[in-house]
Amino acid sequence: MVNNVNIELANKEAIKLIQAAQPIIKGVGVARDVVPGMRENMILHAGPPITWDRMSGPMRGAVIGGIIYQGLAKDQASAEKLAASRDIVFAPWHEHSGVGPMAGVATANMPVWIIENKTHGNRTYCTLNEGLGKVLRFGAFSPEVIDRLRWMQDILGPVIAAALELRGEINLKSLIAQALQMGDEVHNRNRAGTSLFFREIAPAIVDTKFRDADKKKVLEFITSNDHFFLNLSMPAAKAMLQAAEWIKGSTIVTTMSRNGTDFGIRVAGLQERWFTGPAQMVKGLLFPGYSDADCNPDLGDSAITETAGLGAFSMAAAPAIVRFVGGSASQAYEITNRMYEITEAESESFQIPALDFRGSPTGINLLKVCERDILPQINTGIAHCRAGIGQVGAGLVNPPFACFEAALEAFAETYAPVFQ
Amino acid sequence: MVNNVNIELANKEAIKLIQAAQPIIKGVGVARDVVPGMRENMILHAGPPITWDRMSGPMRGAVIGGIIYQGLAKDQASAEKLAASRDIVFAPWHEHSGVGPMAGVATANMPVWIIENKTHGNRTYCTLNEGLGKVLRFGAFSPEVIDRLRWMQDILGPVIAAALELRGEINLKSLIAQALQMGDEVHNRNRAGTSLFFREIAPAIVDTKFRDADKKKVLEFITSNDHFFLNLSMPAAKAMLQAAEWIKGSTIVTTMSRNGTDFGIRVAGLQERWFTGPAQMVKGLLFPGYSDADCNPDLGDSAITETAGLGAFSMAAAPAIVRFVGGSASQAYEITNRMYEITEAESESFQIPALDFRGSPTGINLLKVCERDILPQINTGIAHCRAGIGQVGAGLVNPPFACFEAALEAFAETYAPVFQ
Repeated sequence: MVNNVNIELANKEAIKLIQAAQPIIKGVGVARDVVPGMRENMILHAGPPITWDRMSGPMRGAVIGGIIYQGLAKDQASAEKLAASRDIVFAPWHEHSGVGPMAGVATANMPVWIIENKTHGNRTYCTLNEGLGKVLRFGAFSPEVIDRLRWMQDILGPVIAAALELRGEINLKSLIAQALQMGDEVHNRNRAGTSLFFREIAPAIVDTKFRDADKKKVLEFITSNDHFFLNLSMPAAKAMLQAAEWIKGSTIVTTMSRNGTDFGIRVAGLQERWFTGPAQMVKGLLFPGYSDADCNPDLGDSAITETAGLGAFSMAAAPAIVRFVGGSASQAYEITNRMYEITEAESESFQIPALDFRGSPTGINLLKVCERDILPQINTGIAHCRAGIGQVGAGLVNPPFACFEAALEAFAETYAPVFQ
Repeated sequence: MVNNVNIELANKEAIKLIQAAQPIIKGVGVARDVVPGMRENMILHAGPPITWDRMSGPMRGAVIGGIIYQGLAKDQASAEKLAASRDIVFAPWHEHSGVGPMAGVATANMPVWIIENKTHGNRTYCTLNEGLGKVLRFGAFSPEVIDRLRWMQDILGPVIAAALELRGEINLKSLIAQALQMGDEVHNRNRAGTSLFFREIAPAIVDTKFRDADKKKVLEFITSNDHFFLNLSMPAAKAMLQAAEWIKGSTIVTTMSRNGTDFGIRVAGLQERWFTGPAQMVKGLLFPGYSDADCNPDLGDSAITETAGLGAFSMAAAPAIVRFVGGSASQAYEITNRMYEITEAESESFQIPALDFRGSPTGINLLKVCERDILPQINTGIAHCRAGIGQVGAGLVNPPFACFEAALEAFAETYAPVFQ
C-alpha cells in the first residue's frame, strides 16, 4: 500500500485488462480518415518523440520517402529541407494509438489496419507490411519503394478492405494463439501467422468485384512475404496493452519502443510519460556483405510484441527463429524461461507447446526488472545505419537499463512516500 | 557379408535413395487414367491384401460408399452383395503405387494427386482429402458423403488440376521440411502443410477460367480442413520409399500399413512380400460420447509417413499434436528420441527445431527393431468399428511384433546361410 495505492492490486487490474482484451481485425482504412489526430503534414514514426536533427539514417530515409510518397516534396533534397522545417509535424505512432515496424513512418494517404479490442472498445492502427528488401520501414526511398506504396494505396488496401467487409471481422487473438502453436513468436517469425491470415482472407478476396489480375496480385503480394502478419501482430499487442495504459499505481510496462536513437518505455501508473535511454546495438546474424559498422542501433515499435509477452518472450514457441536471429534452440527456451522472472502473469490465451502449454510470460513489472536486474529480451530486424539502404540482418537486443531506472524514480516521486 | 550380400552396404544404398528422392506435385488426374492397373470394377484399399469377408466395419463402409459413388450399385444392400461377389476386384493401394488414408478406398472415377520423385522418376498417387466428420475414409457412406465425392470429381479435382497446370509443379519435399519447422509432423497434424500448400495454389486458382463461385468454394474447401495436406504428405513419403523398394539385401522397411484387420510391412530386400500380424487397438483421445468399445483396430496407409521418418517419428517437431492424440510435450520428444534407436539415418531434409535441427529418424532397420525390441511408433486417427459412422478419436499405436519376426525369418531364409 503506497499513499493509498496498492501496487499489487493495481497490477492485478492491469493484467486482468490485458488478459481480457480481444483484438480483432475490424477493417482497412486510410490514415487521414481513421487515425486520431492525423493530418496532411504529419509524419508518424516509431519510438519516443524525436526531432529531425537527432534522427538516425534509416529514420531519415523513411521520412524522406514518406514526404515524397505523400507528394509534399519532389526529391530527396527538397524533402530533407521540408523535414528540417516547421512545416512537418513529427509524432510517435504510440501517441496516435498505433505502431509502426522499424522506422514506422506513416503519412496521411497510407492504408492502415484498423484493429479493435472487442472487450474494451479501444482501436489501434498500423500500416500494411510492404514486403522484404528495399522498403520504407528500413529507410529505403528509391522510386520502386514509392511505386509500391502507391500500389498499396490504390489496390492492396482497397482489395483487402472490400474482402474484410464481405467476410466480417477476423479474430486476431485466436490467429496469434494458433501461430504460437506453429513455430511463430509473431515478431521476427510470422510465417504461420501470415499463412493463417492468408487462409482467412483469400476466399473473400475472390469474392470482391476487383479484376482477377488485381486479386491475383494481392494474393501473390501477401504470400510472397512471411512478415506480412507482423503489421497485424503489432497493433494486436498494442490493443491489448492500451487497455492497461492508465491504471493508477500499476508498475506494468505498457510500451517498449525505439526510434533508432532512443529507447523509450511507458508504465501503466505513469500514463503517457516516456522514459528513455540510448538505443542499443543489436547482436545477431548479418546478411552477406555487411559488418557491424553498417548497423543502426535498435529501431521500431515492434517491441510492443515483447511488451505483450510475444516476440522474444515467446521464443520457446519458435525455436526455428534462431536460424534468423542467431543462437541455438536451447537458447530460445532459456530466454522465455528468464522472462517469467520479470513478468506478473502467464497468458491465458497464448500457450507455448514446448513448455507443455505454459502461458507466455505476460506483463513486464518495472519493479521486478529493477530488483532482479534482468532486462527484457527483444529480437529484432537490423536496419543499415545510412538512409536509403534497407535491412542488413536480425538479432537480439535489450533496452538500456537507464529507462527502467528513470521510470522507477518517477514512480517513486509520483506515488511518494513509499520509495522514500 | 551374407551369401555375397553385404547388409550394411545395401542399407546405405537404400538410405541414399530415400534421402535423394525429391517428391513434387506433378498434377491431378482421374484414377482410371493415371493409376497403373486401375479399372472400372477395381477397389483400391489401405493396408495389405484382404478379402470382403475379413474386412472391418469402416473398411466395409468405405467399400459400400465407393461402389455407390462409382455407380456400380444403387444402395447399401446391393453394394454389399456386389462386394461379396467376384465382380469386384480388391487390391491394396500399395500394389498400385499409391496410398490411402484410413480405409483408403479409391475407385476409377476419383481424382487423384500425381506425385513424382524428380530424382528417380517414379510416380505415386493418392485421392484428395475429403475433409472432416462423415467421410468415406472413416467408413461413412451417406448421401452427403457421396455428393461431396461427386463435387470433388466435378469441381475440386479439375480446378486444382487447372491451377497446377498454370502454376507448374510444387516441391513437396520443401513444403514438408517447412511444415516441420511449423509444428506439423504431417501425419495427424497438417495445419502448416495445408496452409503452405494453400498459399502456393490460391493465386493460380484465381487465374483459372472457372466461375468465381467455384474458385471460392474450392478455396473454402481446402482451408476448412487442416488435414487437406495429409493426402500430399502420404504419397510424398511413398514416393521417397518407393525408390528403395527393391534393394537386394537391405533390411530397411519400405512399407507399414493397416487394413483395419491386419498390420502389414514390406522390407526393401524382400521386395513385394507382405508380413502381417493383427492390427492393434489405438490408445488416445476419443471424441465426446465414444468409448473403447466403439473403436476399430488400427487402419490406413498413413503409417507411410512414419516409415519415412515423419509422423510420430517427428513428433518432437509437433508438440502441439499431443492435444489431439494425447500425452505431454515431453512424451513427444521421448518418442522421437526412441525412434533414432531403430533407424539407420537422420534425414538430410527434414529437421526438428526443438532438437537443435537434428534430422528426423529415417529408415527403419528391421534388424534393429528385432535386436533392440523397440517397435516403431505411429500416431493415427481412430475409426468407429461399425460401417457408416466415421472418426471417433486419435491416438498412439504400435505394429504387432509378429510382422517384424516374420520378415526377419523370411530375410534369413532368402539370404541364407547368414542367420543359420
